[in-house]
Amino acid sequence: MKEYKMQGTPPAHIPVKTDSPILLEGIHSKEPEPMPINYPEDQQIGYAVIGLGHLTLGEILPALKECKKSKIAALVSGHPEKLKKTGLMYNVPESSQYSYEDFDEIANNDDVDAVFIVLPNSMHKEFTIRSAKAGKHVLCEKPMAISSDECREMIEACKAASVKLMIAYRIQYEPFNTYVKNQIREKAIGTVKFVEAQNGQSSGNPDHWRYKKALSGGGALPDIGIYCLNTTRFILDAEPEEVFAYQYSNPKDPHFKEIDEMVNWQMKFPGGVVAQCSTSYQIHTSKRYRVVGDEGWLNLDNAYGYVGQKLLHGKPEEHTPVQEISIKHVNQFAQEMDYFSDCILNDTQPYTSGEVGLQDQIIIEAIYESAKTGNAVSLKGKLQKNLNRGKEPSI
Amino acid sequence: MKEYKMQGTPPAHIPVKTDSPILLEGIHSKEPEPMPINYPEDQQIGYAVIGLGHLTLGEILPALKECKKSKIAALVSGHPEKLKKTGLMYNVPESSQYSYEDFDEIANNDDVDAVFIVLPNSMHKEFTIRSAKAGKHVLCEKPMAISSDECREMIEACKAASVKLMIAYRIQYEPFNTYVKNQIREKAIGTVKFVEAQNGQSSGNPDHWRYKKALSGGGALPDIGIYCLNTTRFILDAEPEEVFAYQYSNPKDPHFKEIDEMVNWQMKFPGGVVAQCSTSYQIHTSKRYRVVGDEGWLNLDNAYGYVGQKLLHGKPEEHTPVQEISIKHVNQFAQEMDYFSDCILNDTQPYTSGEVGLQDQIIIEAIYESAKTGNAVSLKGKLQKNLNRGKEPSI
Amino acid sequence: MKEYKMQGTPPAHIPVKTDSPILLEGIHSKEPEPMPINYPEDQQIGYAVIGLGHLTLGEILPALKECKKSKIAALVSGHPEKLKKTGLMYNVPESSQYSYEDFDEIANNDDVDAVFIVLPNSMHKEFTIRSAKAGKHVLCEKPMAISSDECREMIEACKAASVKLMIAYRIQYEPFNTYVKNQIREKAIGTVKFVEAQNGQSSGNPDHWRYKKALSGGGALPDIGIYCLNTTRFILDAEPEEVFAYQYSNPKDPHFKEIDEMVNWQMKFPGGVVAQCSTSYQIHTSKRYRVVGDEGWLNLDNAYGYVGQKLLHGKPEEHTPVQEISIKHVNQFAQEMDYFSDCILNDTQPYTSGEVGLQDQIIIEAIYESAKTGNAVSLKGKLQKNLNRGKEPSI
Amino acid sequence: MKEYKMQGTPPAHIPVKTDSPILLEGIHSKEPEPMPINYPEDQQIGYAVIGLGHLTLGEILPALKECKKSKIAALVSGHPEKLKKTGLMYNVPESSQYSYEDFDEIANNDDVDAVFIVLPNSMHKEFTIRSAKAGKHVLCEKPMAISSDECREMIEACKAASVKLMIAYRIQYEPFNTYVKNQIREKAIGTVKFVEAQNGQSSGNPDHWRYKKALSGGGALPDIGIYCLNTTRFILDAEPEEVFAYQYSNPKDPHFKEIDEMVNWQMKFPGGVVAQCSTSYQIHTSKRYRVVGDEGWLNLDNAYGYVGQKLLHGKPEEHTPVQEISIKHVNQFAQEMDYFSDCILNDTQPYTSGEVGLQDQIIIEAIYESAKTGNAVSLKGKLQKNLNRGKEPSI
Repeated sequence: MKEYKMQGTPPAHIPVKTDSPILLEGIHSKEPEPMPINYPEDQQIGYAVIGLGHLTLGEILPALKECKKSKIAALVSGHPEKLKKTGLMYNVPESSQYSYEDFDEIANNDDVDAVFIVLPNSMHKEFTIRSAKAGKHVLCEKPMAISSDECREMIEACKAASVKLMIAYRIQYEPFNTYVKNQIREKAIGTVKFVEAQNGQSSGNPDHWRYKKALSGGGALPDIGIYCLNTTRFILDAEPEEVFAYQYSNPKDPHFKEIDEMVNWQMKFPGGVVAQCSTSYQIHTSKRYRVVGDEGWLNLDNAYGYVGQKLLHGKPEEHTPVQEISIKHVNQFAQEMDYFSDCILNDTQPYTSGEVGLQDQIIIEAIYESAKTGNAVSLKGKLQKNLNRGKEPSI
Repeated sequence: MKEYKMQGTPPAHIPVKTDSPILLEGIHSKEPEPMPINYPEDQQIGYAVIGLGHLTLGEILPALKECKKSKIAALVSGHPEKLKKTGLMYNVPESSQYSYEDFDEIANNDDVDAVFIVLPNSMHKEFTIRSAKAGKHVLCEKPMAISSDECREMIEACKAASVKLMIAYRIQYEPFNTYVKNQIREKAIGTVKFVEAQNGQSSGNPDHWRYKKALSGGGALPDIGIYCLNTTRFILDAEPEEVFAYQYSNPKDPHFKEIDEMVNWQMKFPGGVVAQCSTSYQIHTSKRYRVVGDEGWLNLDNAYGYVGQKLLHGKPEEHTPVQEISIKHVNQFAQEMDYFSDCILNDTQPYTSGEVGLQDQIIIEAIYESAKTGNAVSLKGKLQKNLNRGKEPSI
Repeated sequence: MKEYKMQGTPPAHIPVKTDSPILLEGIHSKEPEPMPINYPEDQQIGYAVIGLGHLTLGEILPALKECKKSKIAALVSGHPEKLKKTGLMYNVPESSQYSYEDFDEIANNDDVDAVFIVLPNSMHKEFTIRSAKAGKHVLCEKPMAISSDECREMIEACKAASVKLMIAYRIQYEPFNTYVKNQIREKAIGTVKFVEAQNGQSSGNPDHWRYKKALSGGGALPDIGIYCLNTTRFILDAEPEEVFAYQYSNPKDPHFKEIDEMVNWQMKFPGGVVAQCSTSYQIHTSKRYRVVGDEGWLNLDNAYGYVGQKLLHGKPEEHTPVQEISIKHVNQFAQEMDYFSDCILNDTQPYTSGEVGLQDQIIIEAIYESAKTGNAVSLKGKLQKNLNRGKEPSI
Repeated sequence: MKEYKMQGTPPAHIPVKTDSPILLEGIHSKEPEPMPINYPEDQQIGYAVIGLGHLTLGEILPALKECKKSKIAALVSGHPEKLKKTGLMYNVPESSQYSYEDFDEIANNDDVDAVFIVLPNSMHKEFTIRSAKAGKHVLCEKPMAISSDECREMIEACKAASVKLMIAYRIQYEPFNTYVKNQIREKAIGTVKFVEAQNGQSSGNPDHWRYKKALSGGGALPDIGIYCLNTTRFILDAEPEEVFAYQYSNPKDPHFKEIDEMVNWQMKFPGGVVAQCSTSYQIHTSKRYRVVGDEGWLNLDNAYGYVGQKLLHGKPEEHTPVQEISIKHVNQFAQEMDYFSDCILNDTQPYTSGEVGLQDQIIIEAIYESAKTGNAVSLKGKLQKNLNRGKEPSI
């Protein structure tokens, strides 16, 4: 693994205030926003993106163009034609284009510092291990894998190779959700009493890998319900003690022959706090949560979307009992990748560590068990708060 | 019981369109709203209101002034001073003012057609039975009583006396909630998949009867959680098959020595539909529900409030994915009382019958059992859809 | 004129807090709202309502049922059938029903303290003078009359008869508009820089008196544009110095053969403040204004409607730059009539005096002159701030 | 001038649907959004950005990174240190960094196809002419210049040099404003009756060039009021016939010694339509307009902001009288630059031509004249609809 050029040295930057009397001053506001800072290209972290599906083409590659500390360095795909076209569009030379078979040669590509794994869930383990062996840091999409045992293997492999492992929990690098977490910590809504969280959408092509249990590991719960699960743990800064769940799959719908359509579950947290969560592959888009305390509530609509968050704060004030909270939207993927690049540049532990992903997987397994048996399932002793978390991103 | 003067005859009314060239035409809109119709005072139903607490003084008596078919005829209180003052304000003669002790003399008061029972829950049964024996129709506040056995006694007593019994489920006479029910019935959001419903507020004086189990029969669940319960049954037009619940009471809070602070429960309905409900006596006001279907959702904020309903309809439309639904607010208490007066005037069965109240009580008992045992509790065979319901109010 | 029974004596009332341990305490909030106070019926001010058009039947008579200090005492109409039916509905005996011809006999009716004139604009002067001569206080709908000379006559007649005269500027008794006025006074938006105000709607039956100049005195401007005019003067607490106006009437539209369809005008106030106003009889409903200051703005939608006000406050705050202001809606007509009853009971001058109405008429005449000549028209020396205004209503 | 490589040939692109069974399908929606298409870097239009002020550093350079057909090729600044730092951040080699003095050497730089002029208004003319002489296409910030004569010179210079000239009217490439224009054209609000438009903000450093008349040419009107002016012409697709204006500058405020603080003006359009516009350098941010027709209205808040547009559509529908219109936000600067690149690549005339800018300047001069004289000023015969406009951008 190469040494990073910028460790310990501040990036070149443009000071907001200069002596220029004419051109640099912010003129519309007395306190100008800080100017953006781009790292010179040769100091940015180079990513190999593995998997050229919808998420990569529609979000991750465009986001990499916007990044300040991250750049696209290589592409990996099982689809030669798509690989070639995408390479052309993003100026990735053929020497940095890989198939799944020849991927291990990436070890020799010094332009690549990290890989971003954007593959079907069942392939996360394999490519995490191969990336680690190639000496590359790993940013892996959620869910981390399709079983808690796989998660443990991935953590071990990265540890053994001394590479960093981060799970791509976008939400934990997003300003609205971070604001909620901070408000809760600062007791802005008093003592939290309960949470309700939903993440659902309607289904597409039934031949997609998401509907094949061997590839996905499960249905709505690990794919999108995981947002309710993970974000609730994040904002409450707490781990559940017990779960109870109902699971339902429409027997007539071809999507749900192998996987779950809908799961409605409760998670009991310390101090009597309960989270009521719902996830479904067959509802009109509903991506939201509400945290209710004894002195207020926070309601975040489109909480898990790429854009369009809308946050309301209910409080006991006569004339402004409901306030819409305004926060500048960011490109969440760019934010997430630049954070990981920071970890690499400064040799620090990522906030959404492999252990954070592993604990989600343990809870998912408990939820499925409850739905199957009809009984509540205890999680006592199985989870550990903030296990191996790095420092919080500053957002 | 006296005969009603207006049965079968239409009220005097003012036609909206007349030949008046000058004064009657609506001029601001091409389709004027119908003019309000007041029944002449001597044809209105006379109510005795029992209990002069906050709800009666702040809502019910002012609402009676606005009613078109209902008027205030008598007052009943255990508090002579308050009785006298309230009588003075609402022009109720001393001869129509009663104490709890001499209440049975109301049988001789021909101005009184019906009683509205606005007392602590534990007194509902007694006054329903005494009113029935006095030959007066009964409109009883929710929860109907403090046990399902009491509910059955009340139904029997009214049946025996051939008087009508209606439970004051305000929500079922309110236009926003009725609109939601109708939209669901008309498949405006496709097939319903799940519901989340909350009703909570913060507590006041710990000496109030609501915190005494002997008077209230329970805590947040029967008092305010019942709205989630009853309204979900109403809008889905379905009965739950099973419940699972967590209950919590802060051991340090003096309010909750005898009763529950918070209950979070799931109700499983036919077809895999799940309602996730939360009620609490110790949260910032949150009175709402959201019904999610495969083609849209309906989100009603302040669903159970006296005013301030806000309804959003999410649908798969490109430019208007979320629409706020505008409906004219009404005085819910006036609406509810005029509906009951209609039932009396036309000798029809009320929509929110005693049986509707009884079934809520059965579910409440199952929820408490689940919270106590930690197991799901089946309701199969215990509930009957639309049991003894009269015709729907036209709103 | 009879003496008022309640002058100087407080009304019977119910204290909010009593020693009742059970029934009176507000239990949902720690600070219960004050209980409503009704004056006993024989102490309320009795109104004769003149004109049984849409406004009277749809708004004013129902509002009188809700009033606490005002009651319906007589009806006056040129339409015998309507008079009879309305009398039946509101329990007004035939002895208190009048035609326009025998109206002067009302002088002998001791149940009547005041008249509310709800007639075509051209009849306001006549009935104000006849009412004054009958010794009755006068509440007159806006616009006060169809010329400033008529306004002056009306003021004189009431003065000569020692009866009170109030113009029914509903908006000045309405909580949202009052809140705006108070916020401006308290510098909540800093120094006001400009205002934009609109009041428009679409037209109905072209045979209505509003489209006959002889009856109405003008078109959109005096009927609905007057709200922009009057409310701007009210909230700014200032009088305009100059106006400039464009007027337009679609030559093909039968509504606008005699009267103006649309007027767009500017009013220059002291200190460079400008109000830009628009009124139209042929637009989709738009009833609003926005006041912009150097430290914030207030935007009131549906400002002039009977219900549905929505107030936003823009301010330089990072997370809450736009706040919706929550204020309890009231029945504006009841509020306005109870205020006038208060003036009568306590012998005080009304806030929206005849002089306030006269000054609007002077400005209307200047606007029409500007539109006709194409030149700005000065108002210097013609208006006087707060001329003969009584004390502000406490809302 | 070099030939463009891509004229007439379609760019390499990625088809949305492929035969890939696993990775490309959109899975969350049945109709996936089209994938983004990036032109290979060597086929993109290269821009020299002149002026490294707040707008360039904060918006334009980051936007160029997001562009699909445009890239940063050179930088021009009078501030060597800033030039060097910015070059480092955006990988612009020193050979493509210019001072104002040596700017004309850019003629020899084949990487530069176009210049984007982001300088004080008084410098627009000079650099447009120098750019044209260097054979570079010109994208010039608004206002086009400080007098209509200057505008005419600029148009001539570009014509003589056969280079394209586009004025950077961002709003006309922005989806919300374009949606409004299209709705009006499609009669979605019936016949337009009036418009009100505001653009104001509070002032910053009084030493900024905007407050020096020699550099800016005027105050709030040409700088920000121009948005009201230009956008109204754009959405109405019409030219004003007459203007009337009030102008105000606080004599005590050091910002407004040379320039106008606030202008409130009316523009009369054909058919009686009036636009009431306000602009101010000393108000709390208010950037909006409302177009009112006889069948509806459109209200766009934050209309002229870089982000945060909020569009409401009022219409005569019972349950949805006000609808919020949802449109995906875009980076407006990237949109604008890629449109100009398209014009260059396909040799077409820009939509916001120099003539569009010239006509704004003519109107600005008429507004100042009206404010000065106190009389309305006619524009008849001075403006021509859609003068030299290219085809509408497809947004």
